[in-house]
Amino acid sequence: MISFSTIIGITAGIGLFVLAIISSTDNYMMFLSLASAMMVVGSTFAASLISFSFMEVMHAIKAMFQTLSAGRTSQDHLHALVKRFVEFSRIYRDGGISSLEDCLTDKEKNDQSIGLGIELMGSGYKQQDIRVIMGDAMDSHWQRQSLEGKILNTMGVYAPGFGMVGTIVGLIIMLDNMGDDMANLGKGLALALITTLYGVLLANLLFKPTAAQVTEKQEQEYFRNQLITDGFVLLSEKKDALVMQDRLNAYIKPSKRYSVVDSDE
Amino acid sequence: MISFSTIIGITAGIGLFVLAIISSTDNYMMFLSLASAMMVVGSTFAASLISFSFMEVMHAIKAMFQTLSAGRTSQDHLHALVKRFVEFSRIYRDGGISSLEDCLTDKEKNDQSIGLGIELMGSGYKQQDIRVIMGDAMDSHWQRQSLEGKILNTMGVYAPGFGMVGTIVGLIIMLDNMGDDMANLGKGLALALITTLYGVLLANLLFKPTAAQVTEKQEQEYFRNQLITDGFVLLSEKKDALVMQDRLNAYIKPSKRYSVVDSDE
Amino acid sequence: MISFSTIIGITAGIGLFVLAIISSTDNYMMFLSLASAMMVVGSTFAASLISFSFMEVMHAIKAMFQTLSAGRTSQDHLHALVKRFVEFSRIYRDGGISSLEDCLTDKEKNDQSIGLGIELMGSGYKQQDIRVIMGDAMDSHWQRQSLEGKILNTMGVYAPGFGMVGTIVGLIIMLDNMGDDMANLGKGLALALITTLYGVLLANLLFKPTAAQVTEKQEQEYFRNQLITDGFVLLSEKKDALVMQDRLNAYIKPSKRYSVVDSDE
Amino acid sequence: MISFSTIIGITAGIGLFVLAIISSTDNYMMFLSLASAMMVVGSTFAASLISFSFMEVMHAIKAMFQTLSAGRTSQDHLHALVKRFVEFSRIYRDGGISSLEDCLTDKEKNDQSIGLGIELMGSGYKQQDIRVIMGDAMDSHWQRQSLEGKILNTMGVYAPGFGMVGTIVGLIIMLDNMGDDMANLGKGLALALITTLYGVLLANLLFKPTAAQVTEKQEQEYFRNQLITDGFVLLSEKKDALVMQDRLNAYIKPSKRYSVVDSDE
Amino acid sequence: MISFSTIIGITAGIGLFVLAIISSTDNYMMFLSLASAMMVVGSTFAASLISFSFMEVMHAIKAMFQTLSAGRTSQDHLHALVKRFVEFSRIYRDGGISSLEDCLTDKEKNDQSIGLGIELMGSGYKQQDIRVIMGDAMDSHWQRQSLEGKILNTMGVYAPGFGMVGTIVGLIIMLDNMGDDMANLGKGLALALITTLYGVLLANLLFKPTAAQVTEKQEQEYFRNQLITDGFVLLSEKKDALVMQDRLNAYIKPSKRYSVVDSDE
Repeated sequence: MISFSTIIGITAGIGLFVLAIISSTDNYMMFLSLASAMMVVGSTFAASLISFSFMEVMHAIKAMFQTLSAGRTSQDHLHALVKRFVEFSRIYRDGGISSLEDCLTDKEKNDQSIGLGIELMGSGYKQQDIRVIMGDAMDSHWQRQSLEGKILNTMGVYAPGFGMVGTIVGLIIMLDNMGDDMANLGKGLALALITTLYGVLLANLLFKPTAAQVTEKQEQEYFRNQLITDGFVLLSEKKDALVMQDRLNAYIKPSKRYSVVDSDE
Repeated sequence: MISFSTIIGITAGIGLFVLAIISSTDNYMMFLSLASAMMVVGSTFAASLISFSFMEVMHAIKAMFQTLSAGRTSQDHLHALVKRFVEFSRIYRDGGISSLEDCLTDKEKNDQSIGLGIELMGSGYKQQDIRVIMGDAMDSHWQRQSLEGKILNTMGVYAPGFGMVGTIVGLIIMLDNMGDDMANLGKGLALALITTLYGVLLANLLFKPTAAQVTEKQEQEYFRNQLITDGFVLLSEKKDALVMQDRLNAYIKPSKRYSVVDSDE
Repeated sequence: MISFSTIIGITAGIGLFVLAIISSTDNYMMFLSLASAMMVVGSTFAASLISFSFMEVMHAIKAMFQTLSAGRTSQDHLHALVKRFVEFSRIYRDGGISSLEDCLTDKEKNDQSIGLGIELMGSGYKQQDIRVIMGDAMDSHWQRQSLEGKILNTMGVYAPGFGMVGTIVGLIIMLDNMGDDMANLGKGLALALITTLYGVLLANLLFKPTAAQVTEKQEQEYFRNQLITDGFVLLSEKKDALVMQDRLNAYIKPSKRYSVVDSDE
Repeated sequence: MISFSTIIGITAGIGLFVLAIISSTDNYMMFLSLASAMMVVGSTFAASLISFSFMEVMHAIKAMFQTLSAGRTSQDHLHALVKRFVEFSRIYRDGGISSLEDCLTDKEKNDQSIGLGIELMGSGYKQQDIRVIMGDAMDSHWQRQSLEGKILNTMGVYAPGFGMVGTIVGLIIMLDNMGDDMANLGKGLALALITTLYGVLLANLLFKPTAAQVTEKQEQEYFRNQLITDGFVLLSEKKDALVMQDRLNAYIKPSKRYSVVDSDE
Repeated sequence: MISFSTIIGITAGIGLFVLAIISSTDNYMMFLSLASAMMVVGSTFAASLISFSFMEVMHAIKAMFQTLSAGRTSQDHLHALVKRFVEFSRIYRDGGISSLEDCLTDKEKNDQSIGLGIELMGSGYKQQDIRVIMGDAMDSHWQRQSLEGKILNTMGVYAPGFGMVGTIVGLIIMLDNMGDDMANLGKGLALALITTLYGVLLANLLFKPTAAQVTEKQEQEYFRNQLITDGFVLLSEKKDALVMQDRLNAYIKPSKRYSVVDSDE
């Protein structure tokens, strides 16, 4: 599913920028410079490769493109999860672990957190072990994932830095030649500033916003995994459906809370 | 209820700014540029939409407008809460949960934290469960709410950034044309600086102050919810009115502390 | 009592600044601009009123002026406190809570922390409750107080921001008029820079230093309150004078530690 | 083993920079200035020597060069570790500590964490002591190691600072001579800017990226040591192979998890 | 003992700076300005006096000078401490507290942490009390000491700030006079920049590096105090020499660990 807000944001951001340029000058081609773009993007990428491994940087860039598809954990999703766990608690109290395993949809079986929880219950672990193992898995998942947001943020710091490097190089060349040809002073300065513009734009329209979204997504996923961990711990304690509902509802917005009574009617 | 300090702050901030301009130049219309405003505001909004979802950004903007109405948790409110919990403890010890439910005002029933506490007590949860469920609900509420302050703060970072982008674009265009017409150098620079001015003003008079207020409000609400959670835990432990009073008074300023003795006289 | 270091600091800071100006130019009146001062101070105040409530800002400004009086918790004060608690432990073991209440000076009775501790002991609370209630009171006091340092720090961020706004406004007006009158370019720039100067000076000589002092003072007060809390917990456990002395001495600098033996001789 | 991503990153970063210069000016020798390089690099090094001890700075520089060799803890390595601990649990349950000591490879014996774990088990420590001692060793190792990343980061802050110092010195000299020879204004400014360029480049292509890599490496090592500590605690509890596998797998990416069943087939 | 790395760092930093100036201009006296130095140093000092008390600022300046003498806690020192505690454990198990007190060197008796530990053991405190009292003493020592690094860091922020104030003042005066005498424009700017240069140099060569060193030193001392606290707790538990050795060795680098067996041979 496509994330409309990301698409709208990118379109509006670039559109406003292009409009601002076209409405102010006829010589808008001057704002396109392959050499400047290569320098800023290339150096940012190069510095990222020194900071992190190739695979890590690739994952971060993949995560950047994935912000185009809606993937956030909505309150509706959490509501459905609570409902499902309430069902689980009934099925498990009635038919044991085998009924529980049978009732899972394919999507649930392939879900990392739910799959792990079912597997641990099938192996007969007690509540304390389930909490420790699912907690460790959740934390190590978070540690691996959070690197993506960190890399995008780092790129958002390098990009304006290398934009400034490009401008200083341009300034030095221009100033060195100043004696010969005063007429080109303005044009030289204009050219030198293009890399700063690219760097700031890349940081503010691409790296920083996507870093924020990736991080936010992962925080919501972490939160969802806490709910699932709590759910499995309660399951293994054979708590009844109402306790399950009340405990897990605490993770949701009041207006989205699941109620057995409402939904049974 | 209107928040006078916010109104006074905004009026004074804009007034001083307008006064400073009008007293210094006759050509004050030059400071109004729809194109510059659109670029700064639009790009800030666009970058926010990439960083967060559409609904989240809307909630943040709604929270921004709500700073116009007074909504902070005052010490007087906390004093009234302590008084109320002392009453609750007497009613609950005398008449049990049904008397407690009957004595609630409509406002209290609709209050998220008090409503949840009463519901949990009605379901017969013990003190430990009440602390866990109310704590989880409080934390997840905080996690959802704190996003608003975070978004406004992010806007306060993007706005000057895009103001600078606008100025760099203006500078590049101006410098590129410098050869032709030296006379307009000043006017071009003046125009280019308008976006920086808008960006800095938006950040310093709008986004950063409202982000600070939203965050402060939510911290005070979190604090109030801690008091309420403590209150319900003490209720479920059937502590007497004096213990309730002493434990909850610790959350308030000494001069505003509630005393059964004083108020009975 | 007046804080000499604050007085000396302010006098020296302003003196050096005035000296630097007078020794460099005859036209020193140019550095005084009521309009510029109003813009920077007024806007900073306005932005603070949007960020925080009127009462909170007033308290912060009051705390700013109170830095003129010495109010830090000295090691000597802590030494005296330890000595007093050692006396308390003897009195309490001999004569119970009534002797303890009788021996308090008026200043001690009015002290928030000591007063609360005595009150709780008088109500017959056990050590665990004393620790919880005094800890909650200490934390909520800290939460209220720390806002003052936060507000002054925020002002220290707004002031240079609005100084820059003033300079940009000045620059825009000057650049717009540049074509007409080249001779006034310098004077215009000089005027425009005054607001930046005011903003930076206010932040560096007023808001940031007083914020640092207010925060430091409150941290020392928090520390003192920890000592007092520990003291009352030990009292309620009826620990003897030597244990009281050793436990509380840990909060003080070795050279200032109190010793029953030394002081008895 | 050489780290290709570091090599590619450095080559690309420098290559792009050189290309940008050569394609823009014939006078590219102007960008080489031994005096400027000495000032920036030397002062950065000098400030580091004041901040930290000589040996510490040397270790940080050594760690900087070691980023050229691949040394990160891969998921494959963690997979192999889990497999190995599952084997350990079988060997230990069958043959006790002597069999366990015999089965170690030389590499394992020389590994700090594994070696310490085996030694502690050989000395007969119980699980609680093993957790405390290995935890303390892990934390003190981290404290010593993390200094390297901190030093490189500090250098990344000093380098642009001294670059700016160089530029200000250049500016002052140039401005002081301005009256005499207006023609050299540009050349003087160009020269003055070289130190800023060096400082920013050093920070963005060398100090900051290597600091990020060193820190990331050490975080992964810390994570690996947590897995090993957990493994030895489980060993000393004589947990069976399946529990060992499930507990340690939680530290790994789902797709890389080790399974006794899969690998036995 | 003199710290060579600090001496070398300061000499190299100042030397490189002087060399850079002398090699570029004959008019190097221009870089010496008592008025500028007074303004930057004086204002920084003044702002520090408002932020902190006179005694605290004096202690920070004393700590700044003490960075000239080597005082860091080396791994060799920690090795010797472990060895000593292993001896203590034998002596204490054989001869009790009196033998332990007798075997102390004068240096050990005067050491704050060791002295406190011995005193507490002499007073007959149990392990739990020793941990609490030594922990409190360690934390309050840290709280007092860490202020020094904080003050030096604050000075490192004020110095460039007041350098900028000086430059703005210079600029304003120069710009105001610009109309009269264009020839002195350069000289005026050069003079105005001197204060910025002083501010940046003071921050980067003096305040920030010494703040880093002071903080690092105190962290190592805190770490050493943790080792000593652990040692006394183990002593009071009458643990044998091997346990003492293994527990305390965890605080040291593997290559520096103390072994009873090695040293007995």
